[in-house]
Amino acid sequence: MTHTVKDIAAALGAQAFGAVDLPISGVAEPAMAGPGDLALAMSPKYAEGLSAGKARAAMVWAGADWQALGLEAAIVPNRARYAMSGLSAMMDQGQGYAAGIHPSAVIDPSAQLGENVSVGPLTVIGPRAQIGANSVIGPQCFIGADVTLGEGAFLREGVKLGARVRIGKRFIGQPGATVGADGFSFVTPEVSAVEKVRETLGKETELHGQSYARIHSLGNVTIGDDVELGANSCIDRGTVRDTRIGNGVKFDNLAQIGHNVEIGNDCLICAQVGVAGSTRIGNNVVLGGQTGVSDNLFIGDHVITGGATKVLSNIPAGRVMLGYPAMKMDQHIEIYKYLRRLPRLFRDVSVLQKGLKSSPDND
Amino acid sequence: MTHTVKDIAAALGAQAFGAVDLPISGVAEPAMAGPGDLALAMSPKYAEGLSAGKARAAMVWAGADWQALGLEAAIVPNRARYAMSGLSAMMDQGQGYAAGIHPSAVIDPSAQLGENVSVGPLTVIGPRAQIGANSVIGPQCFIGADVTLGEGAFLREGVKLGARVRIGKRFIGQPGATVGADGFSFVTPEVSAVEKVRETLGKETELHGQSYARIHSLGNVTIGDDVELGANSCIDRGTVRDTRIGNGVKFDNLAQIGHNVEIGNDCLICAQVGVAGSTRIGNNVVLGGQTGVSDNLFIGDHVITGGATKVLSNIPAGRVMLGYPAMKMDQHIEIYKYLRRLPRLFRDVSVLQKGLKSSPDND
Amino acid sequence: MTHTVKDIAAALGAQAFGAVDLPISGVAEPAMAGPGDLALAMSPKYAEGLSAGKARAAMVWAGADWQALGLEAAIVPNRARYAMSGLSAMMDQGQGYAAGIHPSAVIDPSAQLGENVSVGPLTVIGPRAQIGANSVIGPQCFIGADVTLGEGAFLREGVKLGARVRIGKRFIGQPGATVGADGFSFVTPEVSAVEKVRETLGKETELHGQSYARIHSLGNVTIGDDVELGANSCIDRGTVRDTRIGNGVKFDNLAQIGHNVEIGNDCLICAQVGVAGSTRIGNNVVLGGQTGVSDNLFIGDHVITGGATKVLSNIPAGRVMLGYPAMKMDQHIEIYKYLRRLPRLFRDVSVLQKGLKSSPDND
Repeated sequence: MTHTVKDIAAALGAQAFGAVDLPISGVAEPAMAGPGDLALAMSPKYAEGLSAGKARAAMVWAGADWQALGLEAAIVPNRARYAMSGLSAMMDQGQGYAAGIHPSAVIDPSAQLGENVSVGPLTVIGPRAQIGANSVIGPQCFIGADVTLGEGAFLREGVKLGARVRIGKRFIGQPGATVGADGFSFVTPEVSAVEKVRETLGKETELHGQSYARIHSLGNVTIGDDVELGANSCIDRGTVRDTRIGNGVKFDNLAQIGHNVEIGNDCLICAQVGVAGSTRIGNNVVLGGQTGVSDNLFIGDHVITGGATKVLSNIPAGRVMLGYPAMKMDQHIEIYKYLRRLPRLFRDVSVLQKGLKSSPDND
Repeated sequence: MTHTVKDIAAALGAQAFGAVDLPISGVAEPAMAGPGDLALAMSPKYAEGLSAGKARAAMVWAGADWQALGLEAAIVPNRARYAMSGLSAMMDQGQGYAAGIHPSAVIDPSAQLGENVSVGPLTVIGPRAQIGANSVIGPQCFIGADVTLGEGAFLREGVKLGARVRIGKRFIGQPGATVGADGFSFVTPEVSAVEKVRETLGKETELHGQSYARIHSLGNVTIGDDVELGANSCIDRGTVRDTRIGNGVKFDNLAQIGHNVEIGNDCLICAQVGVAGSTRIGNNVVLGGQTGVSDNLFIGDHVITGGATKVLSNIPAGRVMLGYPAMKMDQHIEIYKYLRRLPRLFRDVSVLQKGLKSSPDND
Repeated sequence: MTHTVKDIAAALGAQAFGAVDLPISGVAEPAMAGPGDLALAMSPKYAEGLSAGKARAAMVWAGADWQALGLEAAIVPNRARYAMSGLSAMMDQGQGYAAGIHPSAVIDPSAQLGENVSVGPLTVIGPRAQIGANSVIGPQCFIGADVTLGEGAFLREGVKLGARVRIGKRFIGQPGATVGADGFSFVTPEVSAVEKVRETLGKETELHGQSYARIHSLGNVTIGDDVELGANSCIDRGTVRDTRIGNGVKFDNLAQIGHNVEIGNDCLICAQVGVAGSTRIGNNVVLGGQTGVSDNLFIGDHVITGGATKVLSNIPAGRVMLGYPAMKMDQHIEIYKYLRRLPRLFRDVSVLQKGLKSSPDND
């Protein structure tokens, strides 16, 4: 797949200079670029790499003297990071899945596949499932009974969608992602130790054992448009109402979304994040990697959590949080500076105590 | 699947009032209930929802004036949360897996399937595996050589059980759950840096590199009755003896149980919990989401850990813990209150130091 | 599979004593050992177990009086823990996968399989994939287009390798492990709230929402020799350059390695560790279970992190770290001792303040 410098620039809304008809077959970091690559040199720190590599064309920073850098052609984007989105989409070689329906796929006759849907080898599609047009269902996927999957979906190998899951348009599922496992909801015949601890904040526990009875999940999972779900991530079904994910939400790998959780639009849920049951998350929220959120909480719009933040109480809109338990990020940074000085503080107080003891009216 | 109000109440051991022959085809939150649904209004806060929805029957709180709430029939359970278990089991629509043995399943001729076992498409069952009666093995599952799986098992799509795993009755495996991966056990030819750090608590590290040799797992995994394993969760094989899980233990998604771990009966292991190798956990223990437990520890009966607790030392029976490193929950809450006031304390001590400096006998 | 005591000792480079022709068919903990087992009694604390069990031969600690322990034969290794590696390899019963290419596997005609490669049932191997000699590809695996997998690989059930992944010799993949998911890289049309927070450390957030555009992963994953990847673990593709894993790196279950990450040789990455995008990790590094490492950091050679360490900044070579945020382990242990005494410190300072108030020159 080859594009000219001119065509790439046009697709990105960027400016092209020099030999704009040069054919480009890939992208590379400057030092590793071959003569057919577009080198990515979007800041001056890459200037040196350009001379080390063999690129004839590069995407460069605004104001770069591309000719002095030894290039024959250059593309200057408005916002380099954003240009990477369009450029990488043009250059993506894809997974090489074959088009069409593989004969080894097991597709229920009542399933409805839209136009131009491809289904990989050894994939199972259950009764009454509906797959939107132009979807690519990869190998060894599972699509359960009565699932609705919108047009333009792309499922990598081994994605699993349980019965009755509803997903909007342009869904991307990474390998092993699973939607629609049963929620984790158990109850004891008598009031349990955990229920008591929640009331007393840990001051009491009970010492007779009980076995757990299962609360079955009757709700489903409803997911909006333009959602991506990372490898081996899990979104559980709701208990009575649905677990709900809005539009434009992106989940990284190994994330866990519990039953009844509601997530708004345009959120980033990074790797290994866990959100416990019935928590509601607003729009434009970013949960950093390994963030944990307790159950039945509310997280407002535009909240950002740093890596490994553990959220044990509600967070109002707009807050930037860090730590365990979560604090405002600037407060956390201040407190942890003091924490490192804690041994000295203890010594200082000890000195003060001795000083006071030896002062007149303590004698 | 339809049940009358009367039948539902009888099944739950609850009281029924009014038009107890009303047919019920589903359950719903009050505001979203249709005329065929049983609305779930187990506390007075749902009264308003009942008028917004269309339910003719509801499960209501003790003492509710159901007629005044506009209902034709009502069910009053003893313990509402517990009643949800029986009710949700009655109303569960299931995954819609077809009965019988799917012709695409690859089943070794030496495997023994009990009566009324169903096997989904593209599932693999290895030599000499034994599957108990009335089990449902979903699509794309893997059951290894010499596995024993008790009666009434229910495996969702893509569950994997390695060779020689032994599991009791009524096991439930959520999508992608895996039992019997090899334990993570490696050794260096010479004493390693990690072994030294454990002795010195971090005061020394070694600076010459060594490669790791693998210790193969020879033990298996033994799991009791009534265990549920969450989506993409992992239970590893033991090194010499078996990794052991008792009866009635419930694991949420993405949990990790290392080699040689022993867990007693009736424990709840929440999502993304990790228990490292050779740790022993008692009965009726609850590990909150993202809890981590180091290797070779002992956690007593009835211990409860709050979300993201990191356990670095043994915990006696009955303790409620929180934090990193784990402390008693009430102590943790007290200390973190003080932590937030740490900047002020530093200022106070600084003022005291100045005061003391200016006091007579420091001059 | 039976070995004599003599043969086992020879294979381990250990000394054998007594009836060295005794046949051994398994290994066991001393108290549970049968007459055909080699009991593992590598420290004096197992002496009692030996009398309780039925072992006729044991691997014992240096200096043990094996005859007094009632044994007929004994093996004395140099370093007991290291001897377990060789011994466990000899005694491993394996997974019992059938040799040969299973007829249900879907193998592209252009794929190249080396000599003596076996492929399990319902496995998919894509176009132009190359599998090295003597590899065992288990059931229900996926090997994508243009993948290179070196000789002697062993893939357990359900391992997934995305297109163009390159892996060296003797790779072991545990069940559900996945290599080559797309990286988690998204960009907003305008500078995003996260980008601002990184600059201001949390002092500012923006309150107008933006949707995310996807940056496609164009890089691959390159993995060295002798690497093992745990169950349901994930290694993502690079954005432009490859994600790179050196030789001899061992990953436990549910680990997450983000795009562009580089890991050196002979590292141990324990369960549920997450390493965010573009971070570089040196040689002989050990990341304890649930460790998290932020993006774009550098971790030097020989670094060790304790369980659940959260790394938010670079770590120089040789450091032993613990905590959130990561501190030197000994410093962390000291500070957390003081933390527990924080309530008392507040009381002491309060007493001092009262004392100072009542002292002469504050009146």
